[in-house]
Amino acid sequence: MEVEQYMVELGRKARAASREVAASATSARNAALLAARDALDSARAELAAANTTDLERGAANGLDAPLMDRLELTPARIDTMLEGLTQVATLPDPVGSITDMNTMPSGIQVGRMRVPLGVIGIIYESRPNVTVEAASLCLKSGNATILRGGSEALESNMAIARCLTMGLEHAGLPAAAVQVVATRDRAAVGQLITMPQYVDVIVPRGGKGLIERISNDAKVPVIKHLDGTCHVYIDDGADENMAEAIAVNAKTQRYGTCNTMETLLVHADMASVMLPRLGEAYGAAGVELRGCKRTMAILPGVTAASEDDWYQEYLGPILAVRVVEDLEQAMDHINTYSSQHTESIVTRDHGRAMRFLREVDSSSVMVNASTRFADGFEYGLGAEIGISTDKLHARGPVGLEGLTSVKYIVLGEGQVRN
Amino acid sequence: MEVEQYMVELGRKARAASREVAASATSARNAALLAARDALDSARAELAAANTTDLERGAANGLDAPLMDRLELTPARIDTMLEGLTQVATLPDPVGSITDMNTMPSGIQVGRMRVPLGVIGIIYESRPNVTVEAASLCLKSGNATILRGGSEALESNMAIARCLTMGLEHAGLPAAAVQVVATRDRAAVGQLITMPQYVDVIVPRGGKGLIERISNDAKVPVIKHLDGTCHVYIDDGADENMAEAIAVNAKTQRYGTCNTMETLLVHADMASVMLPRLGEAYGAAGVELRGCKRTMAILPGVTAASEDDWYQEYLGPILAVRVVEDLEQAMDHINTYSSQHTESIVTRDHGRAMRFLREVDSSSVMVNASTRFADGFEYGLGAEIGISTDKLHARGPVGLEGLTSVKYIVLGEGQVRN
Repeated sequence: MEVEQYMVELGRKARAASREVAASATSARNAALLAARDALDSARAELAAANTTDLERGAANGLDAPLMDRLELTPARIDTMLEGLTQVATLPDPVGSITDMNTMPSGIQVGRMRVPLGVIGIIYESRPNVTVEAASLCLKSGNATILRGGSEALESNMAIARCLTMGLEHAGLPAAAVQVVATRDRAAVGQLITMPQYVDVIVPRGGKGLIERISNDAKVPVIKHLDGTCHVYIDDGADENMAEAIAVNAKTQRYGTCNTMETLLVHADMASVMLPRLGEAYGAAGVELRGCKRTMAILPGVTAASEDDWYQEYLGPILAVRVVEDLEQAMDHINTYSSQHTESIVTRDHGRAMRFLREVDSSSVMVNASTRFADGFEYGLGAEIGISTDKLHARGPVGLEGLTSVKYIVLGEGQVRN
Repeated sequence: MEVEQYMVELGRKARAASREVAASATSARNAALLAARDALDSARAELAAANTTDLERGAANGLDAPLMDRLELTPARIDTMLEGLTQVATLPDPVGSITDMNTMPSGIQVGRMRVPLGVIGIIYESRPNVTVEAASLCLKSGNATILRGGSEALESNMAIARCLTMGLEHAGLPAAAVQVVATRDRAAVGQLITMPQYVDVIVPRGGKGLIERISNDAKVPVIKHLDGTCHVYIDDGADENMAEAIAVNAKTQRYGTCNTMETLLVHADMASVMLPRLGEAYGAAGVELRGCKRTMAILPGVTAASEDDWYQEYLGPILAVRVVEDLEQAMDHINTYSSQHTESIVTRDHGRAMRFLREVDSSSVMVNASTRFADGFEYGLGAEIGISTDKLHARGPVGLEGLTSVKYIVLGEGQVRN
């Protein structure tokens, strides 16, 4: 009960702060970001001490090596946080822009003004740098934030939060515009996601399990980022060099990212040329192939793909490969097995490129480009709080605009309705 | 268990149909709408017979008079349905439009394409004309629909659905693009709102109780339309005639609509002039006033407003009135008590008008216009499936665009990521 009251109090303060932040000048929000950067720069010793406490506690609790690595705040990672704050301060302010202003037959002018969402709850796992990234994007877009990081990073997150608070106070903004949940009690999450009166949206950052749990229990909208089972389809007549370059890059440039290709589809008439070339390239990179029967007939030694393989997000050096009859079958495969994240066609044919763009129902659909481009920075958003696999509100890479909404504004000269 | 299987089957068919509809030509969707109109026109006798069955059943079950009235399909209401279909057919198709296409430093071109949401579930109460309205807007925007109307209107809805199906088949579109749930079993609703694999969004149309129940239980996003506790604030120095015209129109032009004013706020320096004028006008219209102490001091005979009155959506000839010190106090009142639907300021002061537009957090914010303008048709959307009081995805009047999403599209020439 105590934790619930604590969370309600955070929520109440965040709601009040969100009104002040929404009405604040762009210059004040930018000043807060830059002052927070300076405060973090001056607090390197305190950050290191707090991080050491977390690391020692983690070691004592037997955290595994990847978690320990993500938890560590190295000087280079602190530098990256500082650069991030500078960069977010230089981004254009999305708040207040007015679009689509038109005069109606009644004489009223109707348009739309971009406004902050209000209070954003961020739930994330071990990396403490997310505290700075998420808080800075939410603040820049005029929102208040409640941050619930991993319990293993609590001391680091609290130390970072103190610097963010200094930045806010320096700029005359309310300290409650950025609040870190200061308890390891798990009940805090349950409360955070069920307070629609205080929290407008939840952005979970972490593994699929975390996101599914939160989505199931939340009474607040959730911007979800589930898995990326991405596809590349090599069409009949595609440029073979281009197809090889894209298929290799999409799989091997990084294995652990959500925009990495997990299944390759090859047109039947291209299979005998492309599969041997690609088999060699993937072999050299150490990628294990799991194929359909026709793939296995061309590339002996390839393991048989099970039905389950077509759904897999391997996040590692494994690739499922299927030979398809035509564009139709490729799109059927994608619309059946894809997680609707990112798909790419390699083709020379304009009509088939257009059909692929129109008919494939994923958050990013590409022609002749590597799936690895599905990213807020590569798309010119200047920042990214995540990649949404939802269809409503925000889809694909989510930048500052995804943290805002629009309202209708009406300018009249005394009009009344007949 | 049987109903659940039936709903899963509807969902599965809707999902398959949604792919065909999404890929269909604008001309096919328009042809289906016009053919459905002709089918309805030819089926007036069948519609009347089905409606009579519903009305007799309703009378036997003791439905109250307003429900019986909403249930009735008069020839005039059928005419309105036919006109609606013609009008939706003439609206521009939102699907496929491409915006924000820009070339990135990597050389890829990135833009956004507007796409249907997929499958939309509509849950509504007694009025059978909603079947045509909702189905036509969903079809026009490239979506498949599952319609769950009131059990009291089942025969009428099924008769309408048969005409819609004829329209779809005439145009070569799948019949399952519009499906009416053919059972009165309440378990159908519970199943419809918990099938995210088949249903992308739920649009409930009906009373607050229905919408809250659905929002609480849904595992699918819901476009909510809750109550409209709308405000007009008469600022210091406002044009008195304009203020009176707007305050009277916003309250009395129609009582039962969600964009009707429910609380009037008057600046202290305007109260002694405006309240007697308005008291007279509201008295003549038969509107009961419930006021704060200062209102009661100026208008003797006004009942005292309780704390609860400030939250009320009366939907009738009652108005809460409060005298406020200044713009600040007016906005505080609104941000505390409003349902964030629609608010209007009457003012001559540009700075205060701009502050009101920026700082009032409602789906429509107006200057010198009646709140009654908050409406999809008055805003030029050409249609309206509802007015969203949500902040995410769609806010305010929801037209065809609110039934669509956008995806990123990327055009490359073989680019890979470094």
